[in-house]
Amino acid sequence: MKILFVAADPKPERWTNLIQQHLPEAQIQVWHSDMPSCNADYAIVWHPPAALFDREPQLKAVFNLGAGVDALVQVPNLPRNIPVVRLEDAGMAVQMAEYVAYHVIGISRDMDVYREQQAAGQWKLRRPIERSEWPVGVLGLGHIGQRVARTLAGLEYPVCGWARSTYAIDGVRSFAGEAELDGFLGETRVLINTLPLTDSTRDLIDHSLLSRLRPDAVVINVGRGEHLVDQDLCRAIEEGRVSRAVLDVFREEPLPTTHPFWSMPQVNITPHVSARTLREATIAQIAGKIASLEQGQAISGVIDIDRGY
Amino acid sequence: MKILFVAADPKPERWTNLIQQHLPEAQIQVWHSDMPSCNADYAIVWHPPAALFDREPQLKAVFNLGAGVDALVQVPNLPRNIPVVRLEDAGMAVQMAEYVAYHVIGISRDMDVYREQQAAGQWKLRRPIERSEWPVGVLGLGHIGQRVARTLAGLEYPVCGWARSTYAIDGVRSFAGEAELDGFLGETRVLINTLPLTDSTRDLIDHSLLSRLRPDAVVINVGRGEHLVDQDLCRAIEEGRVSRAVLDVFREEPLPTTHPFWSMPQVNITPHVSARTLREATIAQIAGKIASLEQGQAISGVIDIDRGY
Repeated sequence: MKILFVAADPKPERWTNLIQQHLPEAQIQVWHSDMPSCNADYAIVWHPPAALFDREPQLKAVFNLGAGVDALVQVPNLPRNIPVVRLEDAGMAVQMAEYVAYHVIGISRDMDVYREQQAAGQWKLRRPIERSEWPVGVLGLGHIGQRVARTLAGLEYPVCGWARSTYAIDGVRSFAGEAELDGFLGETRVLINTLPLTDSTRDLIDHSLLSRLRPDAVVINVGRGEHLVDQDLCRAIEEGRVSRAVLDVFREEPLPTTHPFWSMPQVNITPHVSARTLREATIAQIAGKIASLEQGQAISGVIDIDRGY
Repeated sequence: MKILFVAADPKPERWTNLIQQHLPEAQIQVWHSDMPSCNADYAIVWHPPAALFDREPQLKAVFNLGAGVDALVQVPNLPRNIPVVRLEDAGMAVQMAEYVAYHVIGISRDMDVYREQQAAGQWKLRRPIERSEWPVGVLGLGHIGQRVARTLAGLEYPVCGWARSTYAIDGVRSFAGEAELDGFLGETRVLINTLPLTDSTRDLIDHSLLSRLRPDAVVINVGRGEHLVDQDLCRAIEEGRVSRAVLDVFREEPLPTTHPFWSMPQVNITPHVSARTLREATIAQIAGKIASLEQGQAISGVIDIDRGY
């Protein structure tokens, strides 16, 4: 069995050694642009070049090294007759849930104010939290969105979720489709985006959407930068509709030094770290799926290329 | 039925109005030091003076306005023939769990570093979290300790708990009594104190205990200031054994401006806000218990004065 590893990682052996451990019989090669065809059976990829699919027509499956396949489905000659598989969880959902919980707790409980008071040597109590004042709305109820929603419901915040279809999740009010988006937004003060990026979710978080949130809103984006219309968020902050934003993903990464977000005190910026790909868990999952395919078994996580996730 | 409200609150009507709503037939009086005896049936108290119990010998029960009864059991003439009742949860456990989760996530995921990087306009990824490097140990597995332990186990941190006896809690390794304290400490890097303050827990967190934690330890104290020997923590920080401390409770509150904690960058200070008494939930609980007692029913939360909690 031949496996091709295709990712712009300066130390690909950190990945290939793990793959070899899990699949001792495999021949593993690292892609480079001027290599000949190697008739690979499987490709493990992150942002692969189109040349890969021209040169390797015998692939039996393609495995994406992340949960978001928005970059992959843009590749024009991505094969449609074999499974294209996204990463499922692999330790990412819990990271996302804790990143979001950290910020929701911090904002609703004035942790930054206490930090500033400490710096000033001040001992001063703020008003206690009223959870009813912090209703949370989670955009997207896939594996990650559900974990985020459940974690916040477990901390007794009022939680709504919005997705294409209705989900039954304990402690989470579920809203579905375009028709229920307004109702969802009207119940939401803290908006958390975990949607996959597709043509129908791109630019979803615009001025119109932000205007329909509850007053003094908070926006937390852990989906993709392209979900958010940057200038519309800036405007909503200037207008006082949105009081805080926590952004982990951006249209251009690293976020350009001239971007207005850097100088806005209401905006919290992290460098796309809300959920990191964990090599061990990732390779264990992909190797397990390759073993299943070799035995003719079905696997989960196969994407619908037309739907985009 | 006569109820006496005994707490140094400048606006006692915020409490007594609520009590009246829940118990419309009750006569409610606010204690002041020069009032005559009113033959009260019940006293709802926070740090009551000893004079209360001399002047009101007909009390049928005493309700403490907090979960910690360490101040109350110090009152020498606290009656021993009637129920003395502590507050059970009333919205406090979830607050404590989220306060602790906020700090554990923040420290283990370098959130302060990302905050500083943002201020410097830097986009730089840190090493992803390895949960196995952040084993948590919770001192005390009462209602609050259990909720804290469960919340962190839900976020997939390795969690141990230590209490007087063994508890079966999903995802939490339970250690019991003096004999197992060493084992517990050897498994713990992030020490979280939720113990009740008693003669046997006072000064428990001293240099000897701190020295038995895993290297690069973190101390989070949401119990009582008297659990912690302040100068021993300072020493453990200077020695590099403890790298961070999050302190919400202190021997003297407000923390005196001259206290060394204020100037230690490794110490995070909050003004006793990890769990606030929520008036609505508190009075609902106490009123419900008074109604039960009036109907001759048993109630929970009655303390053992000798044990101290």
